[in-house]
Amino acid sequence: MPRLNEHYLTLKSSYLFGEIRRRTQAFSAAHPDARLIDLGVGDVTQPLPPAVIRALHEAADEMARAETFKGYGPYPGYEFLRAEIAAHDFGARGVKVGLDEIFVSDGGKSDSANLQEIFAPDCVVALMDPVYPVYADSNVVAGRSGPADASGRYAGFVYLPCTAENAFQPALPDRHVDLIYLCYPNNPTGAVATRAALGRWVDYARAHDATILFDAAYEAYIVDEEVPHSIYEIDGAREVAVECRSFSKSAGFTGMRLAYTVVPEEARGRTAGGAVMSLNALWQRRVSIKSNGPPYIIQKAAAAVYTPEGQKQVRALVATYMANARIIRDGLAAAGFTVHGGRNAPYLWVRTPAGLSSWEFFDTLLADAHVVGVPGSGFGPSGEGYFRLTAFGSREETVEAVERITKARDRS
Amino acid sequence: MPRLNEHYLTLKSSYLFGEIRRRTQAFSAAHPDARLIDLGVGDVTQPLPPAVIRALHEAADEMARAETFKGYGPYPGYEFLRAEIAAHDFGARGVKVGLDEIFVSDGGKSDSANLQEIFAPDCVVALMDPVYPVYADSNVVAGRSGPADASGRYAGFVYLPCTAENAFQPALPDRHVDLIYLCYPNNPTGAVATRAALGRWVDYARAHDATILFDAAYEAYIVDEEVPHSIYEIDGAREVAVECRSFSKSAGFTGMRLAYTVVPEEARGRTAGGAVMSLNALWQRRVSIKSNGPPYIIQKAAAAVYTPEGQKQVRALVATYMANARIIRDGLAAAGFTVHGGRNAPYLWVRTPAGLSSWEFFDTLLADAHVVGVPGSGFGPSGEGYFRLTAFGSREETVEAVERITKARDRS
Repeated sequence: MPRLNEHYLTLKSSYLFGEIRRRTQAFSAAHPDARLIDLGVGDVTQPLPPAVIRALHEAADEMARAETFKGYGPYPGYEFLRAEIAAHDFGARGVKVGLDEIFVSDGGKSDSANLQEIFAPDCVVALMDPVYPVYADSNVVAGRSGPADASGRYAGFVYLPCTAENAFQPALPDRHVDLIYLCYPNNPTGAVATRAALGRWVDYARAHDATILFDAAYEAYIVDEEVPHSIYEIDGAREVAVECRSFSKSAGFTGMRLAYTVVPEEARGRTAGGAVMSLNALWQRRVSIKSNGPPYIIQKAAAAVYTPEGQKQVRALVATYMANARIIRDGLAAAGFTVHGGRNAPYLWVRTPAGLSSWEFFDTLLADAHVVGVPGSGFGPSGEGYFRLTAFGSREETVEAVERITKARDRS
Repeated sequence: MPRLNEHYLTLKSSYLFGEIRRRTQAFSAAHPDARLIDLGVGDVTQPLPPAVIRALHEAADEMARAETFKGYGPYPGYEFLRAEIAAHDFGARGVKVGLDEIFVSDGGKSDSANLQEIFAPDCVVALMDPVYPVYADSNVVAGRSGPADASGRYAGFVYLPCTAENAFQPALPDRHVDLIYLCYPNNPTGAVATRAALGRWVDYARAHDATILFDAAYEAYIVDEEVPHSIYEIDGAREVAVECRSFSKSAGFTGMRLAYTVVPEEARGRTAGGAVMSLNALWQRRVSIKSNGPPYIIQKAAAAVYTPEGQKQVRALVATYMANARIIRDGLAAAGFTVHGGRNAPYLWVRTPAGLSSWEFFDTLLADAHVVGVPGSGFGPSGEGYFRLTAFGSREETVEAVERITKARDRS
C-alpha cells in the first residue's frame, strides 16, 4: 500500500458540520415525530431571485443550440462576469480591481481551502478564533500544524482570540506570522472591522512580511455606512491582501456554487533564495492546472445578479434575512440570553447559559426545543461557551425557533 | 513577503493548452482573415442532449420556489445521481460499486489533480508517457518531482513510454512506484487496454503496494466488445484502484463541469508507522473540508443522461464524434500520414512528417492549413514526433480540416 498524507490524521475527528449532521440524524431517528428547525449550518432557504432564474433558463437554451453552445470556459471565469464584479463590487465603492485579478470559482469554501497551496509548507498561520473551520483544516492537512490539544487548538497555529472581553476584535499577533486569515463580517461572531481596525492589519502585514487572506463572504450584510466592504478600501492593502467573495449568502447561491477571489497584481511572495514573485501569477497557474472554472450557466446566473432588477431582488433577499436576525436577537435578548452579531451579519452569536459548554447547549437545544444550531467551540477554542444561530431560516421557522428556545429556557 | 510554494517554479513554463491558446491568438492577430479550425483542445461542439436541457429547465424552476429550492447539497453529490451512476455505469456491466464509494465533483480535471493530496509527498509517481498533463503538473506542485530536463521529463517521476514501437502499451515499471496514473482509452494516443493488459497492472499494483489512479474519462467511446470500460471489471482491482469518470466527453458537459471518482472501500494506504487506513475515508474527509459538491441543477442534468431518452441521445452524440474520427483517420491515412487511435477513442494520434518536431508541425499546420491541433510532446517526452487531433469538431469543420491538411501536404 502506498504511504498516505498523514496530516489527515492530525485533523480532529470530524468536520464540524458533519458531526452536527450526525447528531441531528441520530436525534431524528430516535424521535421521528420531532419537527426540527435548523438554524445551524447556515444554509439559505429563500428561492433564487427571478432575474437569476431567468438567466438560468436563457443559458440552458443557449446550451441547446450548436451556435450558442458553450464548452470549456476561461480558467479564471468568463470576462462578462468578471467585468460585472469589477464594476459593481469594487468600482462602485471607488476600489479599482482589474479583470486579470479576479478568479471566479465554485465556492468560497474551495477558495479559502485552496489558497494556502501557493504558499510554503512552513508558513506560520494566524487565525481568528473562533472562525470558519476550513482555514484551519486546510492548513492542517497541508502540514502547517502539529496535533490539537484538548481545547482543539492545533500546535503551530497562532490563534487570535475574539471574545466578548475584546469586543470580538483580535489583538495583533505577538509573534511572527506569514498568513493571516481574517473574516469580516465574521463567521461566526457577526463582528465587523472598522476602517481603523483593518488599517492596523494592513500596516501589520506590510511591516511583517505577511499576507492577509480576507474572507468577505458576508459583505452584503453590512449596513453601517462606515464599515468597509472590501479590504482594498484600505490604502496599501493591494500589496498584502487576497480577498474572497461569494454569491452564496448574498444571492442565495449555496446550491449554485459560485464565488471569486481577488489576487492583486501587487501582491508578492518570495522564494527561499530571496527572489520575489507575484501571487497573482502563481494563483493563475494553480487555477489553470486544477480547474476549468464554474459552469457557464451558473456564471450567466451570477451575472444576472448585477442587473438593476437582480440588485433590487438581492437586496430584498438580504433584508429578509436581516429581519430574521433582528427577530432572533431581540427575542433571545428578551428571554435573557446575551446575544452578539446580527447587525451587519447574518449570524447571531449567543452566550450559552451559565455552566453549559457549547456542545452541551447544542444537545440541550436539540432535545428541549428541537432547534439545531452550531456549537461555538466548533469554530475554535475561544468559541467555547458560545453558540451560533443563523438568520437564513424561513420567517415562520425563525419566529417559532425563538418561541421554542424561550419556552425551553423558561422551563429550565 | 511570505514564502511561496517553490514547487511551482519546477513547473515547465506554461500549461500546454495555455501555450496553444497563446500561439493561436498570436497567429489570428497577425492573420485576421484566416478562419481557423480548432481540433486541438478537445472541446466538444454539439449542443447538450434535449433530455439534459429539459432537466436544466426543470431544476431551474425548482430553484425558483421555496418548497423545492435546494441549498447546500451532500458533499459527495446527491444520492439520486450516485444511484444512477452505480446502476448504469457499473451495475449494467456486472460491477458492484456502492453509493458511498462514489464522489461527484466539478470535473475530471480537478479530480485527477486533487487525488494525489491524500498520499504522502514522497510517493513515487509513474505516468504513461505521453498522457494528459494534469497528472504530472499536480504532482510537480505537490513536490513529488525534481526539475524537468530538456525533453520535459521531470526528475523523480517514472515515465512509461507508449509509442508505436510498443503499440502504445507501456511496460511495467522497472523500479518501485507508489502511484500509477493510467488513462484508458488514452488521451492522447487513443489506445485502449485489453482485459489482460489491465490484469497485469492490477497484479503489479497488488504485488508492489501501489495504487492505480485510473482515468476512464473516454470510456463511452469504447466500441470493441472485449475492452473493459472500468478497471473494476478486473478481479482484485477494488483493493488497488481509484477510478475517475467524466460527463464531459460522453454527454458534452465540458461547459457544465461534472465528473465523479470511485474510491472503493477496500482500497488502502498506510502510515509511516505501518497503520493501515482506508483511502475512501481519507478522500471523504478531503471532500468534506474542501468542497460542497457541484451545483444541484448540474447534478439533475447529469441524472437525465441516464434516462432511456438521455442514453439514446448520448449514444447519438458519441456516434457523431466517432464518425468524425473515422473521417480524420481515413482522410489523413489517404494523404500519407500514419494515424493511430480514433477507433475506441475520440483522439487521433498522428505521426508528424519526417524531420518535424511536434511543435514545428503545430506551427506548420497553423500557418499552412489554419488548423489547430496539439503537439504530442506537450503530453510527455515520448509524444515528440506525434500530433493530436480531436474528433470533437463539427462535421463540416472536420471534413474541411482534413481537406486543408491534405492540400497543405500535397503542396509541401
